[in-house]
Amino acid sequence: MKKRILTGDRPTGPLHLGHYVGSLQNRVRLQDEYDTYILIADIQALTDNFEHPETLAANVFEVTLDYLAVGLDPEKANFVVQSRVPELCELTIYFMNLVTVATLERNPTVKEEIKQRNFVRGVPVGFWSYPISQAADITIFKADLVPVGEDQLPMIEQAREIVRRFNRLYDKVLIEPRAMLGSVPRLPGTDGGAKMSKSLGNCIYLGDPPDAVRKRVMSMFTDPTRIHPTDPGHVEGNPVFTYHDVFNANKQEVEELKDRYRKGTVGDVEVKQRLYDALDGFLAPIRERRDHYRHNPQQVYEIIREGTAKGRAVAQATMEEVREAMKIAYRFD
Amino acid sequence: MKKRILTGDRPTGPLHLGHYVGSLQNRVRLQDEYDTYILIADIQALTDNFEHPETLAANVFEVTLDYLAVGLDPEKANFVVQSRVPELCELTIYFMNLVTVATLERNPTVKEEIKQRNFVRGVPVGFWSYPISQAADITIFKADLVPVGEDQLPMIEQAREIVRRFNRLYDKVLIEPRAMLGSVPRLPGTDGGAKMSKSLGNCIYLGDPPDAVRKRVMSMFTDPTRIHPTDPGHVEGNPVFTYHDVFNANKQEVEELKDRYRKGTVGDVEVKQRLYDALDGFLAPIRERRDHYRHNPQQVYEIIREGTAKGRAVAQATMEEVREAMKIAYRFD
Repeated sequence: MKKRILTGDRPTGPLHLGHYVGSLQNRVRLQDEYDTYILIADIQALTDNFEHPETLAANVFEVTLDYLAVGLDPEKANFVVQSRVPELCELTIYFMNLVTVATLERNPTVKEEIKQRNFVRGVPVGFWSYPISQAADITIFKADLVPVGEDQLPMIEQAREIVRRFNRLYDKVLIEPRAMLGSVPRLPGTDGGAKMSKSLGNCIYLGDPPDAVRKRVMSMFTDPTRIHPTDPGHVEGNPVFTYHDVFNANKQEVEELKDRYRKGTVGDVEVKQRLYDALDGFLAPIRERRDHYRHNPQQVYEIIREGTAKGRAVAQATMEEVREAMKIAYRFD
Repeated sequence: MKKRILTGDRPTGPLHLGHYVGSLQNRVRLQDEYDTYILIADIQALTDNFEHPETLAANVFEVTLDYLAVGLDPEKANFVVQSRVPELCELTIYFMNLVTVATLERNPTVKEEIKQRNFVRGVPVGFWSYPISQAADITIFKADLVPVGEDQLPMIEQAREIVRRFNRLYDKVLIEPRAMLGSVPRLPGTDGGAKMSKSLGNCIYLGDPPDAVRKRVMSMFTDPTRIHPTDPGHVEGNPVFTYHDVFNANKQEVEELKDRYRKGTVGDVEVKQRLYDALDGFLAPIRERRDHYRHNPQQVYEIIREGTAKGRAVAQATMEEVREAMKIAYRFD
C-alpha cells in the first residue's frame, strides 16, 4: 500500500509564489509516489478568523483553483474541506482527554503565535488548543508523513504523543506520523522582506494577471547599496536574483546577468524585465489552467465534493476503529 | 410549538432513588408538556473515565432501561446517545472560538470538580473544557429549559454567554437556555450521608431486586441518639422517615409512625419494615417494566436508535443554520 501524506492550507487567501516554492511544488512531485490528502483547513482558519469568517467561502474555492493550477491532480490528490468531515471534530474531542492543560500551555509555537496575534478579548480556547485538532487531522487520515516547516515540529510531536497514549490506552489503531522537513529555501517578499506574506502586501499570487506581475516585479527591491546601473552590485541577498535562481529556467542567462550585475554592466530594469519574462513563462500555464477552472466552477465544486467524500470515507473508517478500540462501539449501532 | 427541555445523565452506572427524586420524577411529569430530549452523555462521561471506558456500553443500556422503567415514554421523550451525534462535537469546536482560556479557568464548578477528582497526570483538556461541550448539547437541541441542580448554574450561564456572543457575531439562530431549578429535596443515602451516590455505596437502585432493597433498608441509619425502642426518637433528619415522606403513599401511616417514634412506642425494625413495604410497592411496577425491557434488548436498541436519529435530525438542522450564519455554507455543499 502507498504511504500517505497529509498536508493542507488555511483558506485565508489565494496562494502565492512563496506557497509554490515552500510546498506546492513538493506536493506535485510527491503525488505520484504517495496517497495524498490535502486539507483545506477552514476550521483551523476560523480559530483566529472567527470574527470575520465571510471570506472563507470564496477562499476555499480560490485555494482549490490554485491546487489545480499548479498541477495537483484530483485523481491522485484528494482535496478535503475540513469542516465537511465532522469526524475530525469527533476525534478532536476524544483526543482532548489525552492532553493536559499544562501540556498545551507549554507548546512553544502556539505561545509565539498567541503573542503575534494579540487577541484583544483574551485567548480563544479554539486557537489555544489547535494542536489537538491538528493531531486529529493528521491521524484520522492515518498519514505516515506530514511535510512541515520547522516551526510546526511541536505540532507533530504533540500528535505523536497523543497517538502513543491512545494506542497504549485503547488499542493500536493509529499511526505515529513523521514530520517531513522541507529543504526548500524560504522565498523573500518582493520588498526584500524575509517572507512572502499576504499581510505584508509583498506577494505575487499564482493567479495574478501579467500586468500585476509586471508591476510587482518592476518595483521589487534590489541592492540598496547600488545607486547607478554602472555601479558594481550585489547578487547575494538580492531578491531579484533569488527569484531568478528559483524561477528562471535559463540558467545560462541567470549566470550572465549575475556576472554583468557584479561588474556594473547591466541595469536593474533589464534584470527585472528578464525576471518578468521568466516568471511569465512560469506563470502562463498555471494562469491558463486556473482560468479554465475558474470559468468552470461546477467542475471545481465536483472535485471538492469528490475529494471531501473520499477523505470523509477514510475518516469514518478510522473513527469506527477508534470507537471499537475505545469500547464505545455499541450493540444498537 | 411545544417548548423544549434538554436533560440527561452520564452513563456511568444504573440510576437510583436519588436520581428518581432529583430528576426522573420531574421528567416523567414534564414529558407531556414539553418536547423532551434526554442525552445519554457518554462523551461527557469519558472526560473523566477515558482511562477505563469499558463500562460505558453496558451503562448506556442500563440507563435506558431505567428511563423506560420509571415511565419515560419514548413516544414523548427522545433518548439520544451523545457520541452518535457528531454534530455536537462540531458545534463544540465552533463554540471553542467564542470562549477564552481565562473564562474557563474561572468556572467555579469545574474548579471544584477538578479538586475532587485529583487527576494524577494533570487536568485533561476535555474535562477542563466540558462547559463548552455542554453548551453545545443544550443549544444544538434549541432547548428553552434545562432542569439542573444549583451547582450546574455556572454551566447554564456559560451556555447563555456563548449563545449571546454567537447570535451577536453571526446571526440570531440559537436560543438562550434557562435553568429550571428543581425544588426537589436531596435524598440522603441509606447511611444517612447527605447524598445517595454510587461511590459511597449507599444507594438503592431502581433495578435492585427485593432482597437487595430489604437488606439495604434494614441496615439503614436511623436516630443515633436512640438506644432502645422505648426511648423517644427523632424524626427530623432521620433518613428512614425522610424516605417514608417521599415514598410511602400512605400518609396516615407515616404520621402514626412518626408519632409513635417520638413517644418511643415503635421500634426501628417495624419502621423499616413498613418502609420496605412502601418502597416495594413503589419499586415493583418499575422493576417489572425494567425486567420486561431487559429481556427484550432489541426493543431497547430500537428505542435508542430512534431517539438518537430524531435527536440527530434536530442537531443537523441546527448545524445547517449555524453554518449559514457563520457564512461557511459553501456552494459545493
